[in-house]
Amino acid sequence: MEQYEYVIGLDFGTDSVRAVVVNVATGKEEANEVAYYSRWAEGKYCAPEQKRFRQHPLDYIESLEVAVKGALAQLPPGAGQQVRGIGIDTTGSTPCAVDKNGLPLALHEEFGDNSNAMFILWKDHTAVKEAEEINQLAKTWVVEYTKYEGGIYSTEWFWAKILRVFREDDAIQRAAYSWVEHCDWIPALLTGTVKPANLKRSRCAAGHKAMWHPDWDGLPPEDFLVALDPLLGGLRERLFTQTYTADQPVGKLTLEWAVRLGLNPEATVAVGAFDAHMGAVGGEIAEETLVKIMGTSTCDVMVAAPEVIGAQLIPGICGQVDGSVLPGLIGLEAGQSAFGDVYAWFKGLLSWPLAAILPTVDLLEPAVAARIKTKVEDEILVKLTEEAAKIAPQETGLIALDWLNGRRTPDADQTLKGAIFGLTLGTTAPKTFRALVEATAFGAKAIVERFRREGVAISQVVAMGGIAQKNDFVMQITADVLEMPIKVVRSEQACALGAAMFAAVAAGVYATVTEAQRKMGSGFSKTFTPREDMTQIYRELYRKYIAIGSNLETFLSALE
Amino acid sequence: MEQYEYVIGLDFGTDSVRAVVVNVATGKEEANEVAYYSRWAEGKYCAPEQKRFRQHPLDYIESLEVAVKGALAQLPPGAGQQVRGIGIDTTGSTPCAVDKNGLPLALHEEFGDNSNAMFILWKDHTAVKEAEEINQLAKTWVVEYTKYEGGIYSTEWFWAKILRVFREDDAIQRAAYSWVEHCDWIPALLTGTVKPANLKRSRCAAGHKAMWHPDWDGLPPEDFLVALDPLLGGLRERLFTQTYTADQPVGKLTLEWAVRLGLNPEATVAVGAFDAHMGAVGGEIAEETLVKIMGTSTCDVMVAAPEVIGAQLIPGICGQVDGSVLPGLIGLEAGQSAFGDVYAWFKGLLSWPLAAILPTVDLLEPAVAARIKTKVEDEILVKLTEEAAKIAPQETGLIALDWLNGRRTPDADQTLKGAIFGLTLGTTAPKTFRALVEATAFGAKAIVERFRREGVAISQVVAMGGIAQKNDFVMQITADVLEMPIKVVRSEQACALGAAMFAAVAAGVYATVTEAQRKMGSGFSKTFTPREDMTQIYRELYRKYIAIGSNLETFLSALE
Repeated sequence: MEQYEYVIGLDFGTDSVRAVVVNVATGKEEANEVAYYSRWAEGKYCAPEQKRFRQHPLDYIESLEVAVKGALAQLPPGAGQQVRGIGIDTTGSTPCAVDKNGLPLALHEEFGDNSNAMFILWKDHTAVKEAEEINQLAKTWVVEYTKYEGGIYSTEWFWAKILRVFREDDAIQRAAYSWVEHCDWIPALLTGTVKPANLKRSRCAAGHKAMWHPDWDGLPPEDFLVALDPLLGGLRERLFTQTYTADQPVGKLTLEWAVRLGLNPEATVAVGAFDAHMGAVGGEIAEETLVKIMGTSTCDVMVAAPEVIGAQLIPGICGQVDGSVLPGLIGLEAGQSAFGDVYAWFKGLLSWPLAAILPTVDLLEPAVAARIKTKVEDEILVKLTEEAAKIAPQETGLIALDWLNGRRTPDADQTLKGAIFGLTLGTTAPKTFRALVEATAFGAKAIVERFRREGVAISQVVAMGGIAQKNDFVMQITADVLEMPIKVVRSEQACALGAAMFAAVAAGVYATVTEAQRKMGSGFSKTFTPREDMTQIYRELYRKYIAIGSNLETFLSALE
Repeated sequence: MEQYEYVIGLDFGTDSVRAVVVNVATGKEEANEVAYYSRWAEGKYCAPEQKRFRQHPLDYIESLEVAVKGALAQLPPGAGQQVRGIGIDTTGSTPCAVDKNGLPLALHEEFGDNSNAMFILWKDHTAVKEAEEINQLAKTWVVEYTKYEGGIYSTEWFWAKILRVFREDDAIQRAAYSWVEHCDWIPALLTGTVKPANLKRSRCAAGHKAMWHPDWDGLPPEDFLVALDPLLGGLRERLFTQTYTADQPVGKLTLEWAVRLGLNPEATVAVGAFDAHMGAVGGEIAEETLVKIMGTSTCDVMVAAPEVIGAQLIPGICGQVDGSVLPGLIGLEAGQSAFGDVYAWFKGLLSWPLAAILPTVDLLEPAVAARIKTKVEDEILVKLTEEAAKIAPQETGLIALDWLNGRRTPDADQTLKGAIFGLTLGTTAPKTFRALVEATAFGAKAIVERFRREGVAISQVVAMGGIAQKNDFVMQITADVLEMPIKVVRSEQACALGAAMFAAVAAGVYATVTEAQRKMGSGFSKTFTPREDMTQIYRELYRKYIAIGSNLETFLSALE
């Protein structure tokens, strides 16, 4: 402990990587640097209108170097030698085709500009058809391979993306020896273990996105994959059967990377995992604590002891994987397809006159009009929040359904839509906004109720992410609706902090992740306590939300 | 015909009276003047937050004089002597308490400032409780006195308002010898027949709003009224048993009024009626033609031969009264509680940032901000219409329910609310607007379907009012949805024109209203023809509108 003071958490997000240097004894964030992906920032290799989103491996490599060196530069010279471990989290499922040596195909000159040879970002939706085929086949097969992933395989996941690329691109199909997840590849790169046979795969990625499970000895069997498409034939044996939890070490830094980053070559690199799962650990997840990562959408993470869950499947959630969050516990994932996005949508609706009409007003110079537009837009959610806070919940007369981006959990159904009931000529923008906020809180409660129905107890909520940090109004209503206290994680970099905790365990500083959490946790900056007078009212409104929603669901499907 | 060339239509609206001098041979509008009610414009005697709206009789008397003289001043000197008749329409039910001589109580000095002594404007909603009591009593009574008024007595009508005033104001209750409708009182005033015993009551007002019907020899019997409230005891015999259609003369102008207005004392004043009914006549209503007066709400008027309707009640419409529109035919009234108001609501919603935020932007002087706000607001519906027109009907993915102000017909239910289904993160303001326009058109179709179901054929639609004149986009969608041509009345003063037609008949220029319509009708300025490709699509969307609406209705009432 005298010799090594730091661990580094590397958090690869959608636009950038963040390196946080953490004091391993206290969890204090000593330095923090962000580096943006340069090709991505230029919009290269993407076609947003087709929901095609690809990232070049060099973006990761270059930004990683900038971020780590930038963070170390904020500390006294020689600090890099005091780094004892590195933990890594990434978005996912974000897979990439690699050659026999584990090199992403895009790093071959011939594929340097081929977006199919790059990492296929989590939000790439080119594989809609392939996901449908996987779901259809899974339903008819003797073993239901999607069952630990909530029963519905997503467009955004590993196998769908691989199959899509194989069908689209013969050359890649021939050249792809194996495939890696982003969170697998970075630790392997840093430790020189990128050869597919050596590469330590993340339990989290494999279990939640690749239908990996011990029940069928790993990935789905060859006959299933070939039935899906003969193009997949032979790939399975070049992938993996073993997976690892993130408290395990992958190895030491290579000398080359140690020098390049200015780090101690004895530093241990931990197995990677997805950002939300590591964030939950950074937010001090434990049994009976629901961690909500609240941004445009939410990712809801829980852990439960195997003896609580047993062989039971929790229907309608996104996945349940042993060790995907904390080793030894079942990691449970759920989430809301739209949360902050619902508010952003309403802001966009109200901004329409500013975008469509204001620039044409002849009283204004175009530059002034543009500045006014921005100023007004920037205030919309602030002012709506202020006004909505003055309204009593019953006073809106509205009930909204929050499914503007479909519903992820409980019971995934991407065909569902949002709705607003109870409109009158007196319905104002703040009333509508309040109803939308209540709707997202009801969506959160529906997930809580599902966990409880299936025997998973929840006694408190921990929140992180932009909404949790910034919008007390939303958080208070969510607490009132959930009838549980919500604690907001003090660290604004909970994902990186979680990665740093895993690094500390992999490096042997702490024996368990729970110990690392206790020593390194940031604690909580505030707690939202349910207001008794509100909980009663919201219990009644929630009953209506559920009743209207389920009635409408049944009814609309009958109508088609 | 050589001696008298003109008739005058006097149209008393909510804010003003309009006098239109019409060439009785051709129907040409030769002169036209509006005069606003001065006390009303100042907001006197009203409490909008309580939905209390009263009008002083002097407002009518003074504005009537200004309007008639102003219109005549636009014509060659002596034109007033060529006026052969005067027809009058007003809003309604707009009743007023009068003394034994027919003088509104507000014209007594002691009641000069008492709003209970004035005309209670149609949109006054102070009598909610009284209307409920009338409905409850009517349901238990051996004869259902509301049955020719759609089965549901409204807050806005004659008896509810009288009872409200009697309960609120002892002095008025004691002083009120009788009550008059606005449309009864103006003709009586001009002809010196205001004494309650002499006053010729409008069939239209009495039949649609006062539960007058030949089946029970006029107004509901004394025992019913006393059961409602003993305060009403004795009033019935001081009201009326006879009613008159608007083609009947009330009498000649008094010499005093002839001099005061500069009119020929031989001019005949016709029996009055409500604006919408006279508007329908001005719009050349005939059997199988639905006339829609389309503004903030709609008033839908039809006529049917007694032999078509027989003794049958048309359920769920607002009323059916023999001769209330055209003498000898049953006048049928229906309507949508909100039409243009639905669009105005959406405009208001989108204007919220302009009202709540724009004035606080520090880049702008307050006066400039106010001008920009007005300019942008003025463009919202124009630009929404332009953008919504580019969207295909299926493309919105939305279905809206137009009940933002409850539902008047079919099947009155003021507790119903509006709704929007099918919201996604891609739902834009123009898409929402289009869905709202479609919803109001579906609401129109629901009325048409009800008439047809009950055996009243409809082969075309005639439209008038602000929406009909100004918004081709709305009119075309309405035609597509209704699958009937919609002709827009050329005259923008169809109510006054209708009143002028009645004046011509009452004065003996024409033998029948139908003849007057043929000679004096303005014809139509444009016709919206259903587009075949759209009618198919809308038939399907309408099916969904009805299904969703009725499902929701049943479901929500079960939920309470």
